[in-house]
Parts: sequence; C-alpha cells; structure tokens
Amino acid sequence: MSTDYRNLKILMQEIEDDKRIQRIIQQQNQDHELERIWNRDHYNKEGQDKRLDYLKEKHNLPFENLSNNAGIDDLNELKGNIENFIGFSKVPTGIAGPLLVNGTAASGQFFIPLATTEGALVASYNRGCKAASISGGIRSICITESVQRSPIFKFENIIGVGQFLAWVVHQYEKFEEITSKSSNYAKLRNLKTNIEGNQVNLIFEFNTGDAAGQNMVTFCTSEICSYIIENTPIKPKVWYVESNLSGDKKSNYQSFQNVRGKKVVSEVEIPREVVEKTLRSTPEMMADYWQTSTVSLIQLGSIGAQGHIANGLTALFIATGQDVACISEVIVAVNRMEVTENGNLYASLTMPNLIVGTVGGGTSLPTQRECLEIMECYGAGKARKFAEICCALALAGELSICAAIASGHFVSAHQKLGR
Amino acid sequence: MSTDYRNLKILMQEIEDDKRIQRIIQQQNQDHELERIWNRDHYNKEGQDKRLDYLKEKHNLPFENLSNNAGIDDLNELKGNIENFIGFSKVPTGIAGPLLVNGTAASGQFFIPLATTEGALVASYNRGCKAASISGGIRSICITESVQRSPIFKFENIIGVGQFLAWVVHQYEKFEEITSKSSNYAKLRNLKTNIEGNQVNLIFEFNTGDAAGQNMVTFCTSEICSYIIENTPIKPKVWYVESNLSGDKKSNYQSFQNVRGKKVVSEVEIPREVVEKTLRSTPEMMADYWQTSTVSLIQLGSIGAQGHIANGLTALFIATGQDVACISEVIVAVNRMEVTENGNLYASLTMPNLIVGTVGGGTSLPTQRECLEIMECYGAGKARKFAEICCALALAGELSICAAIASGHFVSAHQKLGR
Amino acid sequence: MSTDYRNLKILMQEIEDDKRIQRIIQQQNQDHELERIWNRDHYNKEGQDKRLDYLKEKHNLPFENLSNNAGIDDLNELKGNIENFIGFSKVPTGIAGPLLVNGTAASGQFFIPLATTEGALVASYNRGCKAASISGGIRSICITESVQRSPIFKFENIIGVGQFLAWVVHQYEKFEEITSKSSNYAKLRNLKTNIEGNQVNLIFEFNTGDAAGQNMVTFCTSEICSYIIENTPIKPKVWYVESNLSGDKKSNYQSFQNVRGKKVVSEVEIPREVVEKTLRSTPEMMADYWQTSTVSLIQLGSIGAQGHIANGLTALFIATGQDVACISEVIVAVNRMEVTENGNLYASLTMPNLIVGTVGGGTSLPTQRECLEIMECYGAGKARKFAEICCALALAGELSICAAIASGHFVSAHQKLGR
Amino acid sequence: MSTDYRNLKILMQEIEDDKRIQRIIQQQNQDHELERIWNRDHYNKEGQDKRLDYLKEKHNLPFENLSNNAGIDDLNELKGNIENFIGFSKVPTGIAGPLLVNGTAASGQFFIPLATTEGALVASYNRGCKAASISGGIRSICITESVQRSPIFKFENIIGVGQFLAWVVHQYEKFEEITSKSSNYAKLRNLKTNIEGNQVNLIFEFNTGDAAGQNMVTFCTSEICSYIIENTPIKPKVWYVESNLSGDKKSNYQSFQNVRGKKVVSEVEIPREVVEKTLRSTPEMMADYWQTSTVSLIQLGSIGAQGHIANGLTALFIATGQDVACISEVIVAVNRMEVTENGNLYASLTMPNLIVGTVGGGTSLPTQRECLEIMECYGAGKARKFAEICCALALAGELSICAAIASGHFVSAHQKLGR
Repeated sequence: MSTDYRNLKILMQEIEDDKRIQRIIQQQNQDHELERIWNRDHYNKEGQDKRLDYLKEKHNLPFENLSNNAGIDDLNELKGNIENFIGFSKVPTGIAGPLLVNGTAASGQFFIPLATTEGALVASYNRGCKAASISGGIRSICITESVQRSPIFKFENIIGVGQFLAWVVHQYEKFEEITSKSSNYAKLRNLKTNIEGNQVNLIFEFNTGDAAGQNMVTFCTSEICSYIIENTPIKPKVWYVESNLSGDKKSNYQSFQNVRGKKVVSEVEIPREVVEKTLRSTPEMMADYWQTSTVSLIQLGSIGAQGHIANGLTALFIATGQDVACISEVIVAVNRMEVTENGNLYASLTMPNLIVGTVGGGTSLPTQRECLEIMECYGAGKARKFAEICCALALAGELSICAAIASGHFVSAHQKLGR
Repeated sequence: MSTDYRNLKILMQEIEDDKRIQRIIQQQNQDHELERIWNRDHYNKEGQDKRLDYLKEKHNLPFENLSNNAGIDDLNELKGNIENFIGFSKVPTGIAGPLLVNGTAASGQFFIPLATTEGALVASYNRGCKAASISGGIRSICITESVQRSPIFKFENIIGVGQFLAWVVHQYEKFEEITSKSSNYAKLRNLKTNIEGNQVNLIFEFNTGDAAGQNMVTFCTSEICSYIIENTPIKPKVWYVESNLSGDKKSNYQSFQNVRGKKVVSEVEIPREVVEKTLRSTPEMMADYWQTSTVSLIQLGSIGAQGHIANGLTALFIATGQDVACISEVIVAVNRMEVTENGNLYASLTMPNLIVGTVGGGTSLPTQRECLEIMECYGAGKARKFAEICCALALAGELSICAAIASGHFVSAHQKLGR
Repeated sequence: MSTDYRNLKILMQEIEDDKRIQRIIQQQNQDHELERIWNRDHYNKEGQDKRLDYLKEKHNLPFENLSNNAGIDDLNELKGNIENFIGFSKVPTGIAGPLLVNGTAASGQFFIPLATTEGALVASYNRGCKAASISGGIRSICITESVQRSPIFKFENIIGVGQFLAWVVHQYEKFEEITSKSSNYAKLRNLKTNIEGNQVNLIFEFNTGDAAGQNMVTFCTSEICSYIIENTPIKPKVWYVESNLSGDKKSNYQSFQNVRGKKVVSEVEIPREVVEKTLRSTPEMMADYWQTSTVSLIQLGSIGAQGHIANGLTALFIATGQDVACISEVIVAVNRMEVTENGNLYASLTMPNLIVGTVGGGTSLPTQRECLEIMECYGAGKARKFAEICCALALAGELSICAAIASGHFVSAHQKLGR
Repeated sequence: MSTDYRNLKILMQEIEDDKRIQRIIQQQNQDHELERIWNRDHYNKEGQDKRLDYLKEKHNLPFENLSNNAGIDDLNELKGNIENFIGFSKVPTGIAGPLLVNGTAASGQFFIPLATTEGALVASYNRGCKAASISGGIRSICITESVQRSPIFKFENIIGVGQFLAWVVHQYEKFEEITSKSSNYAKLRNLKTNIEGNQVNLIFEFNTGDAAGQNMVTFCTSEICSYIIENTPIKPKVWYVESNLSGDKKSNYQSFQNVRGKKVVSEVEIPREVVEKTLRSTPEMMADYWQTSTVSLIQLGSIGAQGHIANGLTALFIATGQDVACISEVIVAVNRMEVTENGNLYASLTMPNLIVGTVGGGTSLPTQRECLEIMECYGAGKARKFAEICCALALAGELSICAAIASGHFVSAHQKLGR
C-alpha cells in the first residue's frame, strides 16, 4: 500500500483533529445587526465605513490601505513582485459572508474579501454563504498537499532511460538533502517517473510550507538536476528543468490522480427549509439541475464538473495577492448535489488542485495583507486554513448559482446588479 | 457549405484589410532611449515617473489614477461592479513592450500594462515583446467571434424533443427580433442544437459588439426562452436558461470547434540571429523543447497546448477591467514552434476562446480605463483591436518562456526577479 | 440558423415517421416457448440446432455458414478484405434477444448475433434485451449522419491561409461535382474549416449511403484535393489528405459537436416492477449507481459516460463484418438513468459517433452476411436500421450492467458464466 | 520515493535482461524466398497453402483449425466463452511480418496473424514490419503491469470517509491474504484511494499472471469488499464493487498516470535509406506529418496521440482470442517520430494500457490458440512476450500509415486493396 500511505496518515490525523471540528459550537449566525451592516448601502461611503469599522473593531487593525488611498512610499517593497512599475491597478473589493466554516485549520465565521468588477458576483456568493452558515456551516478539510516540478531527460534510446533510472532510484536521499539545502521551506515528498519512448519525466513532489511554492520548487528541482547531470553515469542527450508535466498553469486531468497544491474537500447539508427560504429553490430542483448540467458538461468536454468556481476564487485570489493565473488550474474540481434521505440537500466540492499561499508572492503587499488579515490568514502557519476557506467559499458559490438557475432567478439577479 | 460561411466571409474581409497590414512600416523599434526608460529602475519613483511621463506625452492624458492614490469620490460609479464594497485592492502594475503588432484592427507599437504580484512576469513578457518587435512584429488577426448561451429543454421522451424542434426551427427570425429588442448591441448569429436522450440544448450564438457580453447574452436568451415557453406547442417538463454547454468559465474542448468570444491567430517569424541574441537560444532548441513539452502535455491531459499564457493574460485582464475569471476558458489555445526552411523560428498562437471587452464590465473604472487608454483600446469599436493585442502578447510570452527553459535560463531569471 | 438546418430537417422527417413508431403494436414478447429456445442449452448441439432452426424458419434462409464449417471455395471473394490470407479465425457466436425496437428504420423484434469469447456477455445483454422488450421496447432514432475527411494545407503564413480560403469558399459546387463523379454513393454534405496558425484543416462531411464509408470519403477527398492543388491561386507549402482531425479511429470530444458516422438516440422507460423482477434492482438503486459511477468517470478523464457499450458492440461488429477497429471511436456516448415522476426508470443512450454499414467492408462475407440477415439488415437501404439496432442493443447492455452492479449481482454472474 | 519503486525495480531487471537484447543477432531478414511466400497470391489457395506449409514446418504444428474448416466437436469446450450459441463467425486472417522484435520477453522474428475484413490493413502493417525489421527490429519492453478494480464507499459525510480509511489503512495485509485465497494467479500490488465529498474510491491494483485478468480482479475485489463490509467499524450507506474509476472499457486520461494492463514501450531507428526505399518517404516528411497531425489531434480532443493503432491491434486481438472490447482503452497511447542527428527516423510508441492475456478468455479456442502458437505465445509465461509483440506491431503500423500519408500513397493503397 505504498502509494498513498502518507496521504492516508495525514487524513488520519485530520480525523483525530476532527474531534475539534465536532466541538465547534454552531454559532448563532443570523445576527440581524450584522446583516444590516453587510448587505446594504453597497455603493455609498456610509456603508463602506460601517463595514470597515466592524472589521477594525473585530480585528483591532486599521485596514487603512483598503479604506483610504495610501500607496507604498518605498517602492523597493515591490521588489520581487513587479518590473517596469508604473502604478497600481485598483480593483473594487467587497465582502461576502460571514461564512461559517468547520475545518481542521479554519474554524469559525469568516468575512471573505472579493476583488472584482463583475456586478452580482459578491451578492451571489454572499447568498450562498448565508445559506451554508444558517445550515451549520461548511465542513472543509485539507486532505493532502504537494507541488510538482517535472524535468525531462532524453536519451539515445530506452536502454539509456533504464540505465539512468537504475542510478536515479538510489539518489532519493541525496535529492532530499539537496532540497533542504536549497530551501528553508521545501521538503521533497515523493518522486514519480514517467517513461515515454527514449525520454523520462521525473516528477518531484514537494511540500512548500505556507507558500504557493512554484518558484521554490523550481529552484530545488534545478539544483537537483545540476547534481544529476554532474553525477549520472549516463548523460542525457537533452534535458529540460520542466517538461510541462507538472501541470503548472494548465487545466489537466492529472490533478485528479495527483494532488497539486492542496486537495480540499468541502461539504454541507442544507435543510429543506433553508433551501426554500434562503436559496428560494428546492433540493429536488437543485439536484435535477446539477444532474442536467453535469451531463451537458460531459458533452462539452470540460475537465471536472462545476458551475462557476472561477468567479469567487479569482476575486479572492486578486484580493489576497495569490498567483491569479493559477485559476487556470484551480478550476479542476468536482461539485456534487444530491437530495438526502430526509429530504435535505447535500452538496460537496472536491478541489484537488488548489494552489494558494499565505507567505511570499503578493501576500505581504499593503491591501493584499489586509485582505488576508480580515480572515486571520496572513503569514506562516495559515496556508491550510486559507485553503479550507477557499474551497468553502467556492462551494457557497455553487449553491447560489445552482439555486438561481434551477429556480429561474439567475437572469433577474444579473439584471439588477450587473452592468 | 453552410456552417462556416460567415466565418469565411469575415476572413475574406480580413484578407482585403491585410493589404493594410502589409503597408505597415516596419518601425524602427530599437529606440535605445526607450529601452533606458522602460527596463531600468524597476522599483524606484524615478523610474516610475519617467515611464508615466513618456505615456502622458504620447497619449496627452494625465494617467493620474494609476500614478497617484486617488480613489473614486462618488461610490455610485461602482454600481454594477461590486456589492458590500469596503475599498480597493491595489495591484502593482508594470509595462511590457513596446510590442509591434501587425493586426487587422491593431496596428503599431503597443505598451501593455500588466497588473501582477509575480516577479519576473513583466520582465519575461517584455523580453518576448522585444524579440518579436525586432523581428518585424507579430501578425495578429481576429478571425471570427460569438458568445453562447445554451438553455436546455427536457421532455417526456425524444418524440417531444422532435416536436419541439420542428417548431423551433421556424422561429429563428422571431429570435432575432427578440434579440434586437432586448439589447442594443447583441445580434443573434446562429442557433445550434444538441439532442441527448429526451433533452435538447439550444445553443444561441450572439455577436456582442465591443462588450465581453455574458450578461447581455444571458438576458437575450432569457427573453427568447420566455417566448419559447409561452408559444411552444409542446411544453417541456423542465427547462433551464443555461445548461453549462455554453462553456462559460470552463476550460473545454468545444472551443476548438466553436469560437467562444473571439478567435484570434497570432504568428511571427523570428530570424535566427534574433533568437540567438535576444532570446539567447536557437530555433532548433526552441522547436525541440516545444515538441518535448507538447508530448508531455498530451500525457498530462491538458486541453490545447501552451506554456504559460495564463500569466500574461491574467495580468492584462486585471489591469484592464476584464472578467478575470474567464482566464479559466481563455487558456484553451494552441501554440506551435517550428524551424523554417531558412533556419528561422516560426511561432504561432491560436486562441479560439478569447473573451474580452472594451466597454462594460470594469472597463470604465478609473485605473482600468487608463490601462486601456495606454493601448488606445478604451470604448466602442476597440474590442477586436484589444483581442489582437491580447493574443500577440500571449505569443510573446510563449517565445520568452520557451527560450528560457530550452536554454536553461528559466531558473536564474526567477532567482533574480522572483520572490 | 445555418449550421444544423439539415439536421433539423432530418429530425422533422423523423418526427413524421414517428407516427409509424407509435403505431407499432406492443407485441407480445414474453413468448415462453421462445425463452426455452434461447436461454437454455447454451453449449450443446441440441440448443444450437433449436436456435438455428427457429431462425431458419423465421427468415426462410439456410444459415449454413454459421452452422456448419463450410468456408469459401473461391478465395477471390476475399479480394478487398484481406492480404496474405492463411485461413479463418472462428469466433463463437450467440444470440441476444429478442429485443423490441421502436425505431424509424428499425421496427419490431430483433435477434442480435454477438461474436465473442467473453463468458456472461451474451447473457448480460440478453437480460437487458428482455427487460427493455417487456417494457414496450427501446425507442431508437437515427437523427443525422455524416463521415468526415480532413485534409490540411500549410502556407508561409496566415495571409496565405486567408487567400486560399477566399478561393476555396467559391468551389463548394465544384467539390460536390467531383464527389458525385468519384463515387456513386458519397454526397458532399458540408465543409467546415479550422485555422491554426499558418495551417488550415478543411473538414469535408459526406453522406456515404449504406456503407461505413471511410474508404469512399478518402477517395473523394483525394480527388477534391487534386483539384485544389491544381487550381488554387496560392500553393500550399505542404498538404496532407488527412490531418487526423476527422477523428478516424480515435476517441475524441469533437464527436459531441459533429456527428461522425450516425448519431442515434435510444431511450426506454422501464416500469418499476420490471426493474424489480427482471433486473432484480430498483429504479432508485440504478439511478444512484448511474450518478455515482458518472462522477467517478468525470475524475477518470473518460470521454462521454457509459458503462460497457464496447462489449456488446464489439461482438456485434465482429459478427456482422463491420470495421471493428472503429470501436475506438464508437464508444464516445452518453448514457443517462433517472427515476421518473411515477417511479419508473428512464434510461437513454446517445451515440453521436456510430460508424456502421450494411454494404461494403466485410458485410458480404459468408457468416457476416448471415448475421446481418438474422436482423434483416443486409444490403442497400439498411444502414440506418442497423444503426438503430446497435444503439438499442448498447442501451440494453447498460441496463443490465447497471442493475447488476447496483444490486451486487455483477460478480456472481461472472463467476457462473465467465472463465 | 515510495510510488513507483516497484516499477523502477522491474525496469532495472529489464535493463540487466537487456544485455540479452543486445546479444540478439541482427538476423538476415531480407529472405527473398520468404517474401515470395508471404506477399503474393493473396487470395488463392496456392498462396494460402504455401504460407501455412511454411508455418507448419517452422512450428511443427498442423494448424488445421485455421486451414481447414474443422469446428468444435464438444460444444462444452465453449463453456465460459459464450451463451445462446448458434455457430462461429469466420473472420479472414492474414499474416503480417516477419517482424523482428528485440524485447525482454519477445526476441526474434514473428509472423503476426491479423483477423480483419478491411482490405489494405494487413498489407500496410506488413510494410511497416518490413521497414522495421530491415532496420534491425523494434526494441520493445514491457515496463510494468497491473489491473485495477475500484469499489466505492459512500458515507454520511467526509468524517465517515476518514474513519473508514483510518481502518482500511491497516487491512492491507488482510487484503493480500484474501487475494491469494481467492485466486491462484492474482497478487495484490497496491491500493490507492480517491476521496470525493462523502465518497471514497479504493483502487486495488493486481498482478494477474498471464491472464488479461478482469474477471479475476473482480472476484478478488468482491471478496475483499465482503470482508470490508463485515468488519469495518463504520458502515457505508452505499457501496459498489466497481465505480468505473478502474477505467475498464473506457478510453481515459488516467492510464498515463497508472499503468492498466501492461505498459510497453517500443522504439526503432529507421535508417534514411530504408525510409526512402521501403517506406517511400523521407525522415523529414514523416516527422513533419507527425507534428502536423499531432497538433490536429490536440484540437480534436483525442486522448494520447496515434494514427491507427486500433486497426492492427483489433485484428490481432480477434485472431488471438483477446477481449476485443478492450480496444476501447488500449488505444490510449503516444506515438512520436523525429529526425535523428544523423538523419535517420526515430519512432516510438508508448502504450500504458495494453490489456492482453495468453491464458483464459478465448485463448484456448481452436483457431485462437493456433494464432497464438504462430507467435509461440500460447499459455502460461507468455503474456509479457505477447504484449511486447503487440506494441511492436502497432508501431510498425504507425510507420506505415505515417509514411503513406506523408508521401501521398495512402489513397492509392486503399484504392488498390480496399473495398
């Protein structure tokens, strides 16, 4: 049972942690005062101030970068984030939530900042958050994680490949050693191989701590490759540090087999009455729409099955300084909706390819840091927590759009709030 | 020859327009003064000011939203873009280019604003722009366009589907009429059908003027559906305004058959000496890496074949107020690199699913408008031009990354500029 | 509404024909005598003789090639079917059915010959046939048809592509003329184009009468290409008669957009009591298994959604002299199972890529012809009928395996009948 | 380096075995006498007799079932292969080859029986065999093997999944024990898991000796599931013995990550003069066609990249009593063609999903056994050998079709030999 052993061990730890989940008090989350603050006065200063004041008090932080228009005084702070700098693009940011999450790392009510220019997006996610929270929150578990780099080595013929692998197979400890010398955070977790004709991809899987980690794993892999090239008894004719088999910035089917970034599962059971009152639909209508649209997705040739998770996650990624281009791969996911035996709605979202970080990248820039702080997700030790919130948010969005289309409200919402 | 007739007619017009392309003077674009302005002093105020001054003079526009920290005084301007507003997320923005584009709508040198927090991204695209421009620029042609909505109608059995379609087939002119009543911009362009068991998807294809157009087509389709439901001689058991077969926010294989948004083709021939000097590689190395990585992509189960177009396009979409979540579908594309008979490098990028707009969405927000103005792409009549720039930029990025990995500079660039 | 107009017209004809479907008497198909003949004495001469005698009497034909061991006296009859001939491979052949089909071309009870060496296969399909027939039969409609060839033409650059297409677009009638000169059966039905960089695929769609037609369309396309090369005002640098975009012998997503071969839809409603008694399951269990297994298929990265249609169709293709290698593409299909409002089971199978013929290929060889004759599907005018039977059989097989796995009988059946 | 450790060890053994490969004498394979026997008199008795006489002498076996028309006297021999038996379908069978294979299990010249009704198929593969053999033969290595079954277990929620897995993870040795009690041949090799919402697929990977093994692994998995259901501390709400995640009878992307059946790699270097003389093309033309058609395949949405491997393998599977329906999954493969530095053609075919057996299924039926005996592949200990021949044959077919289309002979061959 070699393959997923570590995954399973991690999951077992989760399950022990899960006692903690079960201890989470089903917080009273229908605070009408809160609702008045959050879902009114969308576009005037008074509404904005009320919302910011609430967050300032809650977190005891000023949030002045989001609120006023202070920039960065010392442009050197931008080093590592941009070249040929000319200024800042300013993206309107709203709050969805509170969303009650029962995760292993994320537990409690979260206000989720979304940076977008698409009208109705925040409102739609907000509605999903409300329905999920009233129902006791979304259970969200980060099961496993790793980030890949996949160099490729090409030989005269397949015999060369075999001779190369016969040597590589004994170097794993050396590769671990090089990894720890090359990075304070990266840990080599696994090495897979893929032979195709006279070529072989090595697929290095790393843990990257709380960083998204693509640069970190590139550097470690590069160092490993230098060692390989210097020491292999049989030299490849050609080699490249990345063969595109890592999946970086590509929607791909491999993600379902191999976690990329983090694999998170979120689920929620929405009582029939909440479906009817808050989502203005029924469990049967939503499950029927899920099935109908999934059958169309199969004919479309889409990878995975989901409605619009790109919408919420793109907005959250922009707000929090993530590598937004990763949306291209993050969308590989499976949503499922069913009527339970007792007539409620069961909904889940499984995301095997969630690339996020709470350190590095754009996370420490002024507004980006503040947006992470709104969720208490800034800095070391927060990446799994943030991943669990991401997946929970995406599931909330699936609830909302599914209900809207199933019940025919989809168009009217966009007419009212869209451009 | 029913199917693509309109496409072909459009292309024929392009070809006549192409005389114009051929008239474009191969501008001297190795202006060393310019290079000093753009590619130095990345992170200090002096560099920023020099670059902005250049743009201000060139366009006779102040660009004060990008440069200073002014926000929006009247938050009502945000209506249609955001709900639960708390402030602006500020994304560092740099310039890649100038990029010489020989398109049918986009002709000339363009400075391209990229909003990102990923170090080395602007520099990498910039290098690709330089190599392409020195080589005479990227030929970029928007071939055809349309945006889909796909309602689905479910009947007792397939006989119901047939009876329904026998009626629908005579309503096309009525649908056109409803479309023009429902929107000033949308034009119904085609209607396809897809029967699956006792269900049928109607796939409405619209032209959406210069808007990305998803909301516009949703509304038109909704109006058409209301007419259908009221008038069809056989009522469906269930129907939904969108079945997910439109491909909205999903990477999918259908895009290769049916344009979604705009289909743009960009190509360039890079002389061997430019490959060697500017890209520090050789045509043979780049073509070899292209082939090797494409074979890995096939095994990965990725849709299409490209390296990292998500990077540049995400940054350009954030800067210009596009629907950034569309990156999920925009990445469906085919890049190709070959050595020509005379030893140069031929590179092309075909994007059948480029969803962009120059009106509506976030395009008129302060910094977003300015970023469009830098490319003279703001407002009506500019969407095809902007699409041609997008595809050309993405191809420039493919040149750069392909050269970097083929020659082993990929890692060092990220070490120097990344975080 | 250019694109699918012909499809729709064809479907409308179907719907008129459908009055005929509805006139089909629900034949008494629980003939216990028949059951005694068909489902006993699987492996002894007495059973074989009983079954053959029944077929001989029914069709007034000797079926002596299947029954005895006679070969072919004049090996010249094999011309066009084989080279380097050494003898005949003999594949055991059993009968599934009778299957009641309510099609537009296929109406009545059919005994379906299956050539296979996999134990339990005939028995499983037989059970599905029984359940479907008791329920009033499978409605099966061939909606549309066409077979593609896709030559590709490569130019210096995309301007060459445009100039080429500007000429091609006016040659459609000439292409029709060449087609009718090149073949007595092929008719050019449509021409699509696909531009990728400096290349363009022309996708010729033909009707091929009652032949599967791959060779026919190859020859016609070759003749068209000769005309093109001789007459085009701009010569391609390279061209190939087939670019692989036709989909020949490849599972592919394009089939869902463009019929390849024949598109057939089959459906059946199985009353709850038949599900319980004949399939030994319940509609709920079967619908649940369908959904669960479809969600797994999505993660598997399979094209379409079906359980094992390759099993029955491969056996039917071997028996009837089809191009068995086409199974590689025929399997692209969508099965769906649902509980109806009145508690029955609705099941459908949509096959957009069914490549079959009743003339040409191996159809006139001795046993192959007899197997077609058992279904009265031999020769001209029978291809649509045969296609409707194929899809109905495949749906019967889906019913059987779904029930077996849903209810846990899958393993025991294979233990009893398998090897 | 847990994951592929066993794979690598197997490969290392191969590499040692490879000394044996290298010892294979490059047999003189341009025996003109042989050519006269094999490639003439396709359709007359004299030609057939000459060919059979040659095989009889070579193998000292009568081959009377293929040659004359003897059937099976005791129909009980068909038990486990067919139900409702009515007779034998007789499929014309020709020989391609000899094909020189330098494998780890298959070493030497092989005559390969192909049962088909498609004219030109045998001739085309024959040409590929000739070109490959003249060039020193095809190197063909079976790297690894396993067959999957994938039951699925559904719980109230994901916490149930975790509790279940926490128990399952300690049962692996028990599962091994149950496997060895349930089958004399099956060995449990690995267990993977895939969590999706409140469901989990267990993916059991077995070695199945020399049988294709689908029934064997079904039975073992069923026995394991019985044990699970009886002993798990937390009962699933529903479970199914197969979730469709095994990939059985489905083309799928997962095969590239997880071997299914056998993973075999074949490769050959064809000297320029052989390409020119025997294949009547050039390495450059073939490599160009490979690239052009691969780019079209990417747009087609095909899994993997190959031209027509279904043709030869279907014919070989029918002849040798394989489960022909597996062609649906076997076609997932990657072909590659390149010009080498010294101007020759390198061609490889990587097949990760080759399901074959030399015991069980239809392998011991009269003609099927004879066809296996022609290759000395009948019975225990021969499955890897047969797999290496299968992949080598398929590569020979790719060479032939690629050359034909690249050089424009494709159409004329079908005109001459096809129907």
